[in-house]
Amino acid sequence: MQEFASAARLQQKRIGVVPTMGYLHKGHLSLVRAAKERSDLVIMTLFVNPTQFAPTEDLSRYPRDLTRDSELAASAGVDVLFTPAAEEMYPSGYDTYIISERLGTVLEGEFRPTHFRGVLTVVAKLFNITQPHVAVFGQKDAQQAVVITRMARDLNFGIEIIIAPTVRESDGLAMSSRNVYLSPTEHTQALALSRSLKIAEDIITRGERDAQKIISSMTAHITREPDAKIDYIAITDHEKLEPLAKLQSGATALISLAVRFGKTRLIDNTLVKVG
Amino acid sequence: MQEFASAARLQQKRIGVVPTMGYLHKGHLSLVRAAKERSDLVIMTLFVNPTQFAPTEDLSRYPRDLTRDSELAASAGVDVLFTPAAEEMYPSGYDTYIISERLGTVLEGEFRPTHFRGVLTVVAKLFNITQPHVAVFGQKDAQQAVVITRMARDLNFGIEIIIAPTVRESDGLAMSSRNVYLSPTEHTQALALSRSLKIAEDIITRGERDAQKIISSMTAHITREPDAKIDYIAITDHEKLEPLAKLQSGATALISLAVRFGKTRLIDNTLVKVG
Repeated sequence: MQEFASAARLQQKRIGVVPTMGYLHKGHLSLVRAAKERSDLVIMTLFVNPTQFAPTEDLSRYPRDLTRDSELAASAGVDVLFTPAAEEMYPSGYDTYIISERLGTVLEGEFRPTHFRGVLTVVAKLFNITQPHVAVFGQKDAQQAVVITRMARDLNFGIEIIIAPTVRESDGLAMSSRNVYLSPTEHTQALALSRSLKIAEDIITRGERDAQKIISSMTAHITREPDAKIDYIAITDHEKLEPLAKLQSGATALISLAVRFGKTRLIDNTLVKVG
Repeated sequence: MQEFASAARLQQKRIGVVPTMGYLHKGHLSLVRAAKERSDLVIMTLFVNPTQFAPTEDLSRYPRDLTRDSELAASAGVDVLFTPAAEEMYPSGYDTYIISERLGTVLEGEFRPTHFRGVLTVVAKLFNITQPHVAVFGQKDAQQAVVITRMARDLNFGIEIIIAPTVRESDGLAMSSRNVYLSPTEHTQALALSRSLKIAEDIITRGERDAQKIISSMTAHITREPDAKIDYIAITDHEKLEPLAKLQSGATALISLAVRFGKTRLIDNTLVKVG
């Protein structure tokens, strides 16, 4: 893969990469479209990265379907599908990790303390292997987008990071490979997440600027669902991820949340430009 | 610098990089020669990297002489001298670091717990900025050579790492920019370090295989110097840096040490192929 990418670079091809964990849905395919608009050669990586899962998490049951993924990737216009083995990515004696000192420790980082270390490490490896000019990630994983954008800048990767909008089911549920875990009842209850984000947007439009009041309205809406267990609902600066107490005019706020339904943990978010 | 390196790569130039903290001596110049043998374009980076110094260490008094360094680099055949500012390398909000989980915590890592995190971070940044095919480091910093070689492999940098032999003063003292800190008396006492490594090599040649006995002989030799304070003397595997109790035939052992004389901390080492 690395030799192929080096050769493509020497031929002045512009390389776009879309890193994924597979089990592709319309969200992933929208990332491919964003990559195709910005490059001559689109590489999709498909790797269920063990280092971003904690021992208690769902690595072993994470959904996989390489045959279907290959077909979807090809029909979306992916030129190269790169599917390394875990033993190739993390050989015996593997010792080097990338950490986000502050941005990776808040929000998701409080509940998944080693998650972003795994994400940044594998993304840096995939960047070095595929040598892209542009890389596309989804806004659905808002904090991941922030830490990867910061890493690309901090470590001077010289790669343009594109964050593509979240793609939703027609009922509003943010697309995620993990949605297949949900029972029909849980799926119905999980619609409260996108509705709560809509509620937040609406009350901000109507003039509410107190973050705690907005979070309270969202919490009230979500806790009406009997199986919802809230990990967090937060309103932060969209780049620094620092909590905002008041929404200042002109600021862009990130409203993000993580909620568990049974064994399934869902995240969702929205960016709000404060008027 | 990054644009220049990208353009050189498109012209199929083979890039060699020699990362340094400046205050050049013959050791650095030997690294330049090693780089010139393996590349068309030699970039030397000169950056006194704040993140590899602890607050208690010698960052502010680290010796600097850019005028002399520029002349020495040019006469050694360096094509580009890259001297970034600290604010450019670590701008406001900087958040991303590279760690060596195990290799960076032993030996030097026990005495300088954040040192290799700083080293790996800056080296990865310099790799991304200068885009070398080959990078040259000195064996003098033995553990640094190991963790950087491991990082280049772990993070798939696709860069050949060359480790050039330690260059010594005629009296045996390993060349180091920090040698200027030594008073004449301390310099004389510090010669015990290279002598102790020679003693170790000699007794291994004569058949000694018990690491503790070898370390004891070295300790006895060094502690004869009234100002010597030993941080460690260790015999380890040369790649895994795990302590060796017995020197097995065919193994390559790294004998390394750190000793303080007044405020100056010196390191030295030798690689011994066990017969």
